Amino acid sequence: MTVRYEKVALIGLGLIASSMAHAMRAGGLATTIAGHAKTADTRATALEIGLCDTVHDTAAEAVRDADLVVLAVPVGAMGEIAAEIAPHLRAGATVTDVGSVKQAVIDAVAPHLPAGVHFIPGHPIAGTEYSGPRSGFATLFQNRWWLLTPLAQADLAAVAKLRAFLEQMGAKVDEMDAPHHDLVLAVTSHTPHLIAYTMVGVADDLRRVTDSEVIKYSAAGFRDFTRIAASDPTMWRDVFLTNKDATLEILGRFTEELFALQRAIRTGDGQHLFDYFTRTRAIRRGIIEAGQDTSAPDFGRGKAEGRA
Amino acid sequence: MTVRYEKVALIGLGLIASSMAHAMRAGGLATTIAGHAKTADTRATALEIGLCDTVHDTAAEAVRDADLVVLAVPVGAMGEIAAEIAPHLRAGATVTDVGSVKQAVIDAVAPHLPAGVHFIPGHPIAGTEYSGPRSGFATLFQNRWWLLTPLAQADLAAVAKLRAFLEQMGAKVDEMDAPHHDLVLAVTSHTPHLIAYTMVGVADDLRRVTDSEVIKYSAAGFRDFTRIAASDPTMWRDVFLTNKDATLEILGRFTEELFALQRAIRTGDGQHLFDYFTRTRAIRRGIIEAGQDTSAPDFGRGKAEGRA
Repeated sequence: MTVRYEKVALIGLGLIASSMAHAMRAGGLATTIAGHAKTADTRATALEIGLCDTVHDTAAEAVRDADLVVLAVPVGAMGEIAAEIAPHLRAGATVTDVGSVKQAVIDAVAPHLPAGVHFIPGHPIAGTEYSGPRSGFATLFQNRWWLLTPLAQADLAAVAKLRAFLEQMGAKVDEMDAPHHDLVLAVTSHTPHLIAYTMVGVADDLRRVTDSEVIKYSAAGFRDFTRIAASDPTMWRDVFLTNKDATLEILGRFTEELFALQRAIRTGDGQHLFDYFTRTRAIRRGIIEAGQDTSAPDFGRGKAEGRA
Repeated sequence: MTVRYEKVALIGLGLIASSMAHAMRAGGLATTIAGHAKTADTRATALEIGLCDTVHDTAAEAVRDADLVVLAVPVGAMGEIAAEIAPHLRAGATVTDVGSVKQAVIDAVAPHLPAGVHFIPGHPIAGTEYSGPRSGFATLFQNRWWLLTPLAQADLAAVAKLRAFLEQMGAKVDEMDAPHHDLVLAVTSHTPHLIAYTMVGVADDLRRVTDSEVIKYSAAGFRDFTRIAASDPTMWRDVFLTNKDATLEILGRFTEELFALQRAIRTGDGQHLFDYFTRTRAIRRGIIEAGQDTSAPDFGRGKAEGRA
């Protein structure tokens, strides 16, 4: 039996929300999809491509009578939106969000919401380096984790319904508490992004020296970093500002390890390097076994079909 | 007209050499392909899959009468191989290598080679995270750069012939001097690899705390890092030991930038982060325009066909 919401309101119409719209339509998971985006441009695009049934100039209008409200704006904008929509939420409605940081969203959103509204914070671990209403596609969440961090007093029926809804979009759903989520994601996503941004910035400085060679001879390694570093600047600024403690902690460990490897290079300690690189290789196998990536040789960039 | 070598000897039968073997066959670029690998296991595999016409127990036997000898062993093993094959090289033969570092290879190989043998160092900027004789495929070099760093006294006809041969395997060929090559690659490949190895190592430590979650929720960012960090440990150990100065220089710049971003996070300087992330985004566009990667949303991992 399909678990569906009568009316879903998408606040923010970027990659995640537009992918949800496509997935809801593909699965028949909502009768009406209402949408709101901050800029007139995005709203016009949403109308033009028929992303939602209705597109509203304000978030307050969009959430009227909605059974499910999805806050899909940068983490730093969640509090303001919550304050705006609170008086217009219908009793019994579920409010969720898709922010990459959870404790900061709970702190910003929960105080505004009236009793009788179920707030269930969430985070789909899915995305591409693209953003905006045209970047969405129905299968983005297929086989990807969607983490929920329900509060202690959460309504179990409301959580179960949201969970079933997300699973119908193809996601695997897990629950954990918010601080733990923020630490795990600092390791698997936030710190790697910061590092990739940094390396690409270094290359940008050096481009003045070596002309276009950095781009021209962009090899595996740097090329992957540039893809990561092409992600939405506003979203990532907010991630680092709101998951500050966990990110700084992991960065500290990273720097410590990097200095140890740097010393091994300087002193010519090949055994240390070899052992380290052998150990990290095993983690890759774990990820492939966990189904989080394919074993296709991605550096070949689609050339694998020519494999002999 | 096809430029071809009568007999090509591949010393080392890993990803690059086995891909060359497939590409040479596909293009009819050699009459005979002789191969040698250090381990009996690899030699047996090469025989089993028919990678070469002949497989030899020693490099010295493999290079006999060869017109082109390709040194495809880790950078740290080049000198020893050169010393071994030198007395067996035929006059007028071309010797090239595929090492990721060029000055160290020149220093290790050139002193051993007799006059009348053309040594033309090279580096194909192509690869996957796989290694070994089964990992090769004929199209690996298609539309990828192959950098040559000929010595000042290089024979122009020999260089031109090698160049045409590589182009027939699908590569784009450029020439530069060895120190410059080593600096550019430190930026585009060597330092990014070290950083990826480091981050994956940090996660491995933390896995003891968070159980399998680091792998389970491996997101874009970390997932890409693990692919990079799955590359061959011996090869990468040698890269860092032999391109020490350039790698340490770029690492120094990286650390400097990372500390500046870390401070921006700590002090809550959102504008600094936003500006930095906006600047790095532009580099990605440059790489796509340069044809070094596709604009397909890779984080979606082949889900792009469902894009609506």
